[in-house]
Amino acid sequence: MKQITVLGGGTGSYVVLSGLKKYEIDLSAIVTMMDSGGSTGRLRDQLGVLPPGDLRQCLVALSEAPLLWRKLFLYRFENGDLSGHNFGNIFLSALQKCSANYHEVIETASFVLKTKGEVVPVTYDHADICVEYEDGKFLKGEKFIDSNFQTKSRIKKTYLQPEAQPNPQAINKITEAEYLIIGPGDIYTSIVPIFLVNKIKETLAKSKGKIIYVLNLMTKLGQTPNYKAKDHVRDLENYIGRKIDYIIINNGTIPQNILKWYEDHGEKKVEDDIKEESYQVIREDLIDRSEISKDKSDKLFRSILRHDSEKLAMVINKLL
Amino acid sequence: MKQITVLGGGTGSYVVLSGLKKYEIDLSAIVTMMDSGGSTGRLRDQLGVLPPGDLRQCLVALSEAPLLWRKLFLYRFENGDLSGHNFGNIFLSALQKCSANYHEVIETASFVLKTKGEVVPVTYDHADICVEYEDGKFLKGEKFIDSNFQTKSRIKKTYLQPEAQPNPQAINKITEAEYLIIGPGDIYTSIVPIFLVNKIKETLAKSKGKIIYVLNLMTKLGQTPNYKAKDHVRDLENYIGRKIDYIIINNGTIPQNILKWYEDHGEKKVEDDIKEESYQVIREDLIDRSEISKDKSDKLFRSILRHDSEKLAMVINKLL
Repeated sequence: MKQITVLGGGTGSYVVLSGLKKYEIDLSAIVTMMDSGGSTGRLRDQLGVLPPGDLRQCLVALSEAPLLWRKLFLYRFENGDLSGHNFGNIFLSALQKCSANYHEVIETASFVLKTKGEVVPVTYDHADICVEYEDGKFLKGEKFIDSNFQTKSRIKKTYLQPEAQPNPQAINKITEAEYLIIGPGDIYTSIVPIFLVNKIKETLAKSKGKIIYVLNLMTKLGQTPNYKAKDHVRDLENYIGRKIDYIIINNGTIPQNILKWYEDHGEKKVEDDIKEESYQVIREDLIDRSEISKDKSDKLFRSILRHDSEKLAMVINKLL
Repeated sequence: MKQITVLGGGTGSYVVLSGLKKYEIDLSAIVTMMDSGGSTGRLRDQLGVLPPGDLRQCLVALSEAPLLWRKLFLYRFENGDLSGHNFGNIFLSALQKCSANYHEVIETASFVLKTKGEVVPVTYDHADICVEYEDGKFLKGEKFIDSNFQTKSRIKKTYLQPEAQPNPQAINKITEAEYLIIGPGDIYTSIVPIFLVNKIKETLAKSKGKIIYVLNLMTKLGQTPNYKAKDHVRDLENYIGRKIDYIIINNGTIPQNILKWYEDHGEKKVEDDIKEESYQVIREDLIDRSEISKDKSDKLFRSILRHDSEKLAMVINKLL
C-alpha cells in the first residue's frame, strides 16, 4: 500500500482525509498543535492541555465508527457552562488529564473512533505561532492571526514561541511517505506552524516523497491577502524548503452569491497564474456544492466554501 | 445464573455494584433519575438533559473496561468553564443530544465502558422529588433535600412533580429478579424516588424476588435525623409496600475521628435496634477502612465513611 502523509489542520485536512480514507492507501495525518481560538483555545488556557481542535477534526475525518460517534465528537454545546465547547475537544482534554502521556490519548481516541490510519501531532510541546507583518505589526497566537481582518499587509516573518521539538513519529511519517499532501487550508495558521517545529523542514527537504499541494479557493485577510496562486506557492516553498511537485487547482465556477459574501469580507477568488512548464498542474472542478451549516454556538468566523472531499480524493488518487 | 436487581443511585449503588460484578450473577441496576445537585443539576437545568450523575456512577461501577476509561468517566474538571463538571456527566449529556433516544445513550455508554449487566433508568421522564416535613417545611428538588442540614424534623410526605411513568425495562427487571437489593444510600434522595415512579411500588409488591436491605452506617440530617435501624426499615417498608426479607447491618467499629467528624455535622452512627425474630439479620464488619479522597472541585457535601464493596458483596453473595 502507498504511504501517504497529510500535513495540516482545520477544515482543510478534514476534507482531504475524509475523502482519502475510502481508498486502499496507508494514510497518516501530521497535525498542527498551535491552535488557540474558540473552544480549543479556552480549554488550552484554562486546563493547560494541548490544543485539541485540529487533532479532533483529523480523528473524526479518519473515523470508521458508527455515525453517532462522529456526530458526538463534532457536537457543540449551545447553552450553559459548556456553551460553545465541542464535545470532542472536551473528550481529548479530559483524556489528557487521565492519561500517562499524549500517545495514550491518541491511542484511546483512535480506538473509540476506529480511525483508519494514524493521527500524529507534529509536537507534544506547548507553543504559539508568532508573525511579523510588513507594516510592522506583530501578533502572537493563532487566534489573533486568524481574526486579523484589519490589515492587508503581508506576513514577512514567522516563528514559534517557545521553540518546539518534533514528535519522532512525525519525523518518521515524513521520511517514509511516498506522497506528502499539503493544503487546502490557511497557510499561516494551519500549515506553516508544522514546518516551524524543529527539524520538520529539514526532514521534508530530505524526504523522497512527492509533494502535492492543494491550492486554496479564496484569499484570506491577515494571511494571504490578495494572493494569487503563485504567491501561495512561493510562500509555501519558502517554508518547506523544497519545490512542490504537483499543484491541484480548482477550475470550477464559484457561485456568485458566495463570491459576493467573500467580497463583503474583503476576500476574493485565488487567481490561477501558475504556468504549466514550472509544475505538474491538475485543474478540476473541486467545489463542494452542498450547503455548509454552522452551529449557532460556534462563535468563530469560518469559510462558507469548501473543496468537495470526494472529488478532491479522486484527483489525488489518480496521482498516486 | 441468579437474577439480581440493585435499586438506588449515588455512592451506595456504586459500592454494591462494584463488589457484586465480580460474581457470576445476572446483575442489573435500576437507577433513580431525580438528582438535581452539582454538575448533574447544572447540566440538567442548562441543557435540558436527563440527570446523568446516578446513571454514570452505576455504569462505571459495572465497567470492565481498562482503568483509564473508568478514571475518565469519574474525572472532574478543576478549572475554567468546565470547573466542577464531571466528564462522565458531560459524555452522557452530549450523547443524549446526539442520540435518537435514551436507550441509545445507555447502549453506547455501556459499550464503551464494557459494563457487565444492565443499567436501567427507572423512568425517562423529567421529574423532581418533593418532600413535606413534620414541621411544615416543603422542599422540591433533590439538591435542596440533600443540603437541608438545618432541620431535625422528619419527612412526613413525598411525591414526584410531575408524575413519572416507569421505564418498561425497569418493570421487567423488578418482576424477574430473584433478589432485589436496596441500600445503602440516602433514603429520600437515592432510594424513595424510585418507588414514587408510577407502578414501581405495585410491581415490587407483586414480585417474588427476596428483598435485601443494606442499612446505612450513619444518620442523615434532612432525611433520616436521629434514625435508628428500625426507623429506616419502617420508612422503607412504607415506600416499597412490602416486608424486607434480609437486613445487612454493619457491626464493625467506626473509627473515633470519623464519628467525631459526623458529630460535628449533627450526625451519628445508626443504632442497631433490630430484633432477630422479625427479620433475617446478617451482622458483619462492613467498614471500608481505606481513606476516601475528594476532588478539590467537588463542591458537594459527601460522606467520608463507606461500606467496603468487597466485604459487602461477599455477605450478599452468601445469601443468594
